[in-house]
Amino acid sequence: MDRFAWINLLYDFYGPLLTDRQRQLLELYYEQDYSLGEIAGELSVTRQAVHDTLKRAEESLEYFERKLNLAMRYLNDRNRIGEALAVLDDLAGGREEALIRLRQLLREMREPGKPISENGVL
Amino acid sequence: MDRFAWINLLYDFYGPLLTDRQRQLLELYYEQDYSLGEIAGELSVTRQAVHDTLKRAEESLEYFERKLNLAMRYLNDRNRIGEALAVLDDLAGGREEALIRLRQLLREMREPGKPISENGVL
Repeated sequence: MDRFAWINLLYDFYGPLLTDRQRQLLELYYEQDYSLGEIAGELSVTRQAVHDTLKRAEESLEYFERKLNLAMRYLNDRNRIGEALAVLDDLAGGREEALIRLRQLLREMREPGKPISENGVL
Repeated sequence: MDRFAWINLLYDFYGPLLTDRQRQLLELYYEQDYSLGEIAGELSVTRQAVHDTLKRAEESLEYFERKLNLAMRYLNDRNRIGEALAVLDDLAGGREEALIRLRQLLREMREPGKPISENGVL
């Protein structure tokens, strides 16, 4: 996973713990793909100020991950669920109804990209 | 779930974000079942000081849960995994090897009580 995707994942988990300003800059930079210069122009601040705020926000995200490890745990669980789904896909026949329900449950838990949704429940 | 179990669950998730002192008191009170008075005696502070520190620690845990909703998400996932395991238990026969592996994966993910282990990965 590249740094860009990693920061995005951390943001999905820990974004609510950042300040409004940090969230605003992270969203412009990492989600809407603005450059530092474009953000500076948009918000009428210096490019350096944008850089510093982004850096502090990223350090906060890394701090929470060092403490709580939730992103790593999520990736680990997602791998397990992927493997469980692959095992299910290998099963032919059997009790169809039960297998369909099981596949549905596992897919619900996999929820790609946004590990924590708006209401906080996968 | 009673308040005692709920605070314990929140502590499993967010404990690393508390101060050493807060963690110490929560562990004495919630894990080792000391009374407020016993903790006060043990640490040579007033019962009121113990009460206030515990209250602030609990408020911090509730704050993190309001922001991140991880404990609720964990309970929700655990219900889904429990349902998936029940579906599996209803399946008789089938591809035994695959079913055994699938059951193992789901049990690994269920990890009762301690949603985040020492190394941060379920």
